[in-house]
Amino acid sequence: MSTRTENELHGVTMLGNTQSKYPNDYAPEVLETFINKHPENDYFVKFNCPEFTSLCPITGQPDFATIYISYVPCHKMVESKSLKLYLFSFRNHGDFHEDCMNIIMKDLIKLMGPKYIEVWGKFTPRGGISIDPYCNYGKPETKWEEIAYHRLTNHDLYPEKVDNR
Amino acid sequence: MSTRTENELHGVTMLGNTQSKYPNDYAPEVLETFINKHPENDYFVKFNCPEFTSLCPITGQPDFATIYISYVPCHKMVESKSLKLYLFSFRNHGDFHEDCMNIIMKDLIKLMGPKYIEVWGKFTPRGGISIDPYCNYGKPETKWEEIAYHRLTNHDLYPEKVDNR
Amino acid sequence: MSTRTENELHGVTMLGNTQSKYPNDYAPEVLETFINKHPENDYFVKFNCPEFTSLCPITGQPDFATIYISYVPCHKMVESKSLKLYLFSFRNHGDFHEDCMNIIMKDLIKLMGPKYIEVWGKFTPRGGISIDPYCNYGKPETKWEEIAYHRLTNHDLYPEKVDNR
Amino acid sequence: MSTRTENELHGVTMLGNTQSKYPNDYAPEVLETFINKHPENDYFVKFNCPEFTSLCPITGQPDFATIYISYVPCHKMVESKSLKLYLFSFRNHGDFHEDCMNIIMKDLIKLMGPKYIEVWGKFTPRGGISIDPYCNYGKPETKWEEIAYHRLTNHDLYPEKVDNR
Amino acid sequence: MSTRTENELHGVTMLGNTQSKYPNDYAPEVLETFINKHPENDYFVKFNCPEFTSLCPITGQPDFATIYISYVPCHKMVESKSLKLYLFSFRNHGDFHEDCMNIIMKDLIKLMGPKYIEVWGKFTPRGGISIDPYCNYGKPETKWEEIAYHRLTNHDLYPEKVDNR
Amino acid sequence: MSTRTENELHGVTMLGNTQSKYPNDYAPEVLETFINKHPENDYFVKFNCPEFTSLCPITGQPDFATIYISYVPCHKMVESKSLKLYLFSFRNHGDFHEDCMNIIMKDLIKLMGPKYIEVWGKFTPRGGISIDPYCNYGKPETKWEEIAYHRLTNHDLYPEKVDNR
Amino acid sequence: MSTRTENELHGVTMLGNTQSKYPNDYAPEVLETFINKHPENDYFVKFNCPEFTSLCPITGQPDFATIYISYVPCHKMVESKSLKLYLFSFRNHGDFHEDCMNIIMKDLIKLMGPKYIEVWGKFTPRGGISIDPYCNYGKPETKWEEIAYHRLTNHDLYPEKVDNR
Amino acid sequence: MSTRTENELHGVTMLGNTQSKYPNDYAPEVLETFINKHPENDYFVKFNCPEFTSLCPITGQPDFATIYISYVPCHKMVESKSLKLYLFSFRNHGDFHEDCMNIIMKDLIKLMGPKYIEVWGKFTPRGGISIDPYCNYGKPETKWEEIAYHRLTNHDLYPEKVDNR
Amino acid sequence: MSTRTENELHGVTMLGNTQSKYPNDYAPEVLETFINKHPENDYFVKFNCPEFTSLCPITGQPDFATIYISYVPCHKMVESKSLKLYLFSFRNHGDFHEDCMNIIMKDLIKLMGPKYIEVWGKFTPRGGISIDPYCNYGKPETKWEEIAYHRLTNHDLYPEKVDNR
Amino acid sequence: MSTRTENELHGVTMLGNTQSKYPNDYAPEVLETFINKHPENDYFVKFNCPEFTSLCPITGQPDFATIYISYVPCHKMVESKSLKLYLFSFRNHGDFHEDCMNIIMKDLIKLMGPKYIEVWGKFTPRGGISIDPYCNYGKPETKWEEIAYHRLTNHDLYPEKVDNR
Ligand SMILES: [Ca+2]
Ligand SMILES: [Ca+2]
Ligand SMILES: [Ca+2]
Ligand SMILES: [Ca+2]
Ligand SMILES: [Ca+2]
Ligand SMILES: [Ca+2]
Ligand SMILES: [Ca+2]
Ligand SMILES: [Ca+2]
Ligand SMILES: [Ca+2]
Ligand SMILES: [Ca+2]
Ligand SMILES: [Ca+2]
Ligand SMILES: [Ca+2]
Ligand SMILES: [Ca+2]
Ligand SMILES: [Ca+2]
Ligand SMILES: [Ca+2]
Ligand SMILES: [Ca+2]
Repeated sequence: MSTRTENELHGVTMLGNTQSKYPNDYAPEVLETFINKHPENDYFVKFNCPEFTSLCPITGQPDFATIYISYVPCHKMVESKSLKLYLFSFRNHGDFHEDCMNIIMKDLIKLMGPKYIEVWGKFTPRGGISIDPYCNYGKPETKWEEIAYHRLTNHDLYPEKVDNR
Repeated sequence: MSTRTENELHGVTMLGNTQSKYPNDYAPEVLETFINKHPENDYFVKFNCPEFTSLCPITGQPDFATIYISYVPCHKMVESKSLKLYLFSFRNHGDFHEDCMNIIMKDLIKLMGPKYIEVWGKFTPRGGISIDPYCNYGKPETKWEEIAYHRLTNHDLYPEKVDNR
Repeated sequence: MSTRTENELHGVTMLGNTQSKYPNDYAPEVLETFINKHPENDYFVKFNCPEFTSLCPITGQPDFATIYISYVPCHKMVESKSLKLYLFSFRNHGDFHEDCMNIIMKDLIKLMGPKYIEVWGKFTPRGGISIDPYCNYGKPETKWEEIAYHRLTNHDLYPEKVDNR
Repeated sequence: MSTRTENELHGVTMLGNTQSKYPNDYAPEVLETFINKHPENDYFVKFNCPEFTSLCPITGQPDFATIYISYVPCHKMVESKSLKLYLFSFRNHGDFHEDCMNIIMKDLIKLMGPKYIEVWGKFTPRGGISIDPYCNYGKPETKWEEIAYHRLTNHDLYPEKVDNR
Repeated sequence: MSTRTENELHGVTMLGNTQSKYPNDYAPEVLETFINKHPENDYFVKFNCPEFTSLCPITGQPDFATIYISYVPCHKMVESKSLKLYLFSFRNHGDFHEDCMNIIMKDLIKLMGPKYIEVWGKFTPRGGISIDPYCNYGKPETKWEEIAYHRLTNHDLYPEKVDNR
Repeated sequence: MSTRTENELHGVTMLGNTQSKYPNDYAPEVLETFINKHPENDYFVKFNCPEFTSLCPITGQPDFATIYISYVPCHKMVESKSLKLYLFSFRNHGDFHEDCMNIIMKDLIKLMGPKYIEVWGKFTPRGGISIDPYCNYGKPETKWEEIAYHRLTNHDLYPEKVDNR
Repeated sequence: MSTRTENELHGVTMLGNTQSKYPNDYAPEVLETFINKHPENDYFVKFNCPEFTSLCPITGQPDFATIYISYVPCHKMVESKSLKLYLFSFRNHGDFHEDCMNIIMKDLIKLMGPKYIEVWGKFTPRGGISIDPYCNYGKPETKWEEIAYHRLTNHDLYPEKVDNR
Repeated sequence: MSTRTENELHGVTMLGNTQSKYPNDYAPEVLETFINKHPENDYFVKFNCPEFTSLCPITGQPDFATIYISYVPCHKMVESKSLKLYLFSFRNHGDFHEDCMNIIMKDLIKLMGPKYIEVWGKFTPRGGISIDPYCNYGKPETKWEEIAYHRLTNHDLYPEKVDNR
Repeated sequence: MSTRTENELHGVTMLGNTQSKYPNDYAPEVLETFINKHPENDYFVKFNCPEFTSLCPITGQPDFATIYISYVPCHKMVESKSLKLYLFSFRNHGDFHEDCMNIIMKDLIKLMGPKYIEVWGKFTPRGGISIDPYCNYGKPETKWEEIAYHRLTNHDLYPEKVDNR
Repeated sequence: MSTRTENELHGVTMLGNTQSKYPNDYAPEVLETFINKHPENDYFVKFNCPEFTSLCPITGQPDFATIYISYVPCHKMVESKSLKLYLFSFRNHGDFHEDCMNIIMKDLIKLMGPKYIEVWGKFTPRGGISIDPYCNYGKPETKWEEIAYHRLTNHDLYPEKVDNR
């Protein structure tokens, strides 16, 4: 009843597999892909990830964020169950908010070679201040490089209301 | 009392017909159209469809989404009751979120030949992550091809807050 | 104490008149205008109309919408009490959602000859789907024609959340 | 690292099992329980289920609801994965909204023998009207019978705002 | 696949019937009932009706309200499609807000003989002020008379925020 | 088409009368009543009045509030157009917030002799603090005296969030 | 034009006085009162104070809260400008959240001798956790002692959603 | 402790002066300015004014609006206390909504000679319809003229939801 | 400048101490208390804890919740920094949602001996269903035992809207 | 487990240091930086600061704001704990709202030499009006100068709703 053949699901091992082990530390190797069946038409896929947590590299205290990942696929697409395991691998890992977002973006670029990708983290406050890093990327020497510049240029002109409650 | 004549309603068989049978599986053939009476002026029509449900192609578990379909009609317009039956036909059908959105858009392009169309699905989470695919289309070799590019370029600069509750 | 002289209110007969009769059917003739006192500077006027209701042309069942009308006046401006009576005249009139919005826009263009106008209807759902038509217009062979194109091009990139509750 | 021993998980077969088959029609037999480890202290457990769907018994058209189930356990507690499969079994089953809520409550009473239980369904509208049935139950000849009466008496004094959008 | 037999649907003629004519004026006679299959357990059924409209008895101008109807069935239950037609019959009928709510409640009491019923109308403003009547009823000489008193006593301690926008 | 006879509208002179003059100062004499047609059943009527403004008795600066008036009618009911004119009469009148609410309640008691009434004002802030007075009343030596006590006792256990924005 | 005579304003020196000096540390002595003109009827007055700030007694870091103060006056009422200066006096003062709320309540009891008073502070988070203390008081050996108990018993059954953003 | 010297506050007489008299009618002469200390860098200043009220020029009934004023200063900046008195002067003045917004903008242009300014009024409804005028201005023969055109062109593509409650 | 003496802070070692080590597993021993300085007056203290995370005891996948802890202190009060470390200790610990809430409540009862305490967890969904356990406790053979019963009886009559987004 | 080496944290002295003293007055010297590890890719970092407070330079009364600071780093990045201490230093300092925002931006430009920066303050109202200054900056003679112009040009086309409550 599906329009995906088994062949088109090649490489997807995590989805529907409950024996999957959760990694102990930062583990980009758990990421998996499947093929894009609609390459003739550019389109966006967004992941909403409100359950991200890592550790402060200096104090060791836990940090929490909602992460929004949005990309335009080229040939490969990231499988969501493996993305979940990958994000889990930051759970006992320490890094600055700004570094985490850049690392996630770079790992996904390496994995999928997307036309475009952006990663936005919105963290909970420490000492009354919260930090929201945003980075993006367009494939060099394609129109997507320009689009990345355009989207950075227009980023977040309307900051959401934050009152720490 | 209506400004639509009977002739202008030619082809509309579902609306006001309660004997309509609900299809058992993916059924693009149920879609119907009526003529656009205002072709001299480009305008948008949007359908808000918060009652979409399909099945996961691998695990068979149900998926749920709100779908937003927005288009600029050319000569034909899709009739909403038939659109409802068409979306219903995914109820016992299995496909990836990203594939469903592309299939819906392609079926509506084939049906209506619109100047422009876009389809945005916002799914409920599985494993703490939700997926929102967005695809669009402009009639090739018209200004709408460029508009599709423009709208993709500016897509979703402000992701809505998602906290899984 | 007003800056409007009696002369500048010429043609306004409905406002402050409680004998106004409500029309039985579609009645564009009730619309009235007054003169624009600030023609040297282009500006927008928006009407929020959450109390619009008409009938389905086929089933006769009532439809409900919130309509947003926004325009840039040229020499004439529509008086709001007469606009209310005009919109009321759809109460026992049957037409498709898409047709109603186009008809309202055309009547107001004919009445006022505005530089620019747009009409957006947001209807309540039937069969789980709601329809939101949007049309606009810029005075031909002025810069407003281009603005109309620009605004259509950027229309509704962020569909509001609709969950039918 | 858990405080639940294997013995205390006796009877839980669905959780962590991805081979679970989704039932074709109404299937109360899929429900499973585990033991209450804190029977000395009365407490509430609430399930939020926004992904409920069934069929209209007369027209066959799909219905959608968010269901809130809240109970005070006695010796047994319902396992949530099996509850999910049970609610799924209404997917191709036809019944009135009011009947569905009563049936769900009765099945859970039979399964767990709870001290107290309530079930509230909030459906999407048909023909402009939405229906929200609420039923509850307290174990006869205990104080919970009186509590059920008290809660029914004070039910929903503040209906949530519904505007069908 | 339904648990309602044909017999249990006796008297339901409107649902799934698209030939239903919309009444021209106040028409309590269109109301229909079906039997309550769960009479051994008291429970609430609420109707959310955001599409109510009537006329001002003096000026003839249209009024709009969201009506919330909540009741505990005895032997009979009101069928929702017929309720829709009944509420529609106020469309060209003139009465004060306070009178409309009392009339609706009395008609439903006469129709169903419920154990308990309450009707709350929330109207849009005229002259900057909006009116929200609320009436309720408990079957005389039963505990529901006391419950009606209890609910009236505790009615609307937290008025919703209204700012006319 | 109304169920109100002319007789039952005796005393209503403001509604539908556009010659009504707006009073220059506090004017309880403009209040009008009509008869309660449903005296056999106690019910609530609430007025939402977000357009109240008065002056500070010491500094002369304007104050703004939303006022919620809720009452159970005895024989008479206040007509809403006259209530609007009455509230308008505070526009150039100076008094403390707490005094205004008590005065309004006392005037309405004198006018209608209601079984029960409550008045709640929610003012905009001055110096970072806003004031919300609430007073109520039940007819002495009736059960409504006790109800007034009950409602005062349970007043505003959940203060709305106020952040001055 | 006010109903307050000069006599009835005796003791109010801060309101309308711009020379008022802001105190350097905790200063209950700045509080002023005026007389209650409606002592025959019990009523509530609530102050919304979203601009409260103090210091942590151990680390010296600033704390922020919204404070809700609600009371039933006896003979005296606190003047709001003086309340503002009093709350300001905590600006450079260090104390635990729980202590601040108790101190404010005690100072206001001493000042006004109210029938009833409650103070609720809602602080911003430190280390991911926020603290909301609530204390109340009823005049001993009056019915208000019992009311205070009743309100404490029913306090905050519905904690507001807090997500630190 | 301030970085503003007395000289830099020259012309500011209202702020901190409690003897300021409130004008009886439209009084642009009360407006005051202070100098812009950061002229080397263009920046926006916005005033949120939710307490605006005027009179209808024909019926004399009060109108209410929230006004948003946003400007880019050149050499002078409007002092906010004087702006408050100016807006107060409309309180007993009659004019159409559209005229009020244009008048306010013109007065502020005359006062400050800003590089850019825009004024947006959002009024409460009369007869079910509310009106929101928006006007703007850029200094002629500077880039701000073009910016004004750009902002008008992109004005209010997302009308806020209005339901008159 | 604080009203807390050093003596009154006896036992507080974590607050303002940045060398605090984060525990590896469930660690009730990190909890600390300070003395209640207002024991003569019963009052509530609530902790909002939106950053709780634990592991599923069977699948090992992470769970996330917002926890609300509310209590009436007797002689001792829990220090918030130590509470944070305690809640952190569940980070790599596996238990059912229902068990976690009961364990937290029991640990805090053992620590502080409060008059009353309640713990409410609101988890994110798994498989489309979320679970919200609530438990409470009143000191046996005091009035607080009865209050606990009263609050359990009235628990959550208005479930918050949950749509998994 | 962190990807930041000790070397890469050079200059960070405040974070994890609880002996940090809070400055008495405006103290730009407390600001600290760390190096940007991802200089090859432009990205945004935003700080949400809802706990800003300063004093009015003329009346001495406290002002409150939420400040949003957003920048694109060049080589250096501001450390958030030191930013917190810096913003704290305005606590007992007096300046106009418009001046505070410009000063903060200039200090951060001097500190970090960012490619781009913007600062938006949203203050609570005084006399019914609130002020929201916004300033931005792009590195001269780079593309960021043009981006700053672009962002200023498109600033705040959708003012948030403000009603002072
Ligand atoms: Ca917030
Ligand atoms: Ca088929
Ligand atoms: Ca959410
Ligand atoms: Ca006609
Ligand atoms: Ca909705
Ligand atoms: Ca809604
Ligand atoms: Ca009839
Ligand atoms: Ca509103
Ligand atoms: Ca008078
Ligand atoms: Ca607010
Ligand atoms: Ca929040
Ligand atoms: Ca609204
Ligand atoms: Ca341990
Ligand atoms: Ca939600
Ligand atoms: Ca200094
Ligand atoms: Ca607000």
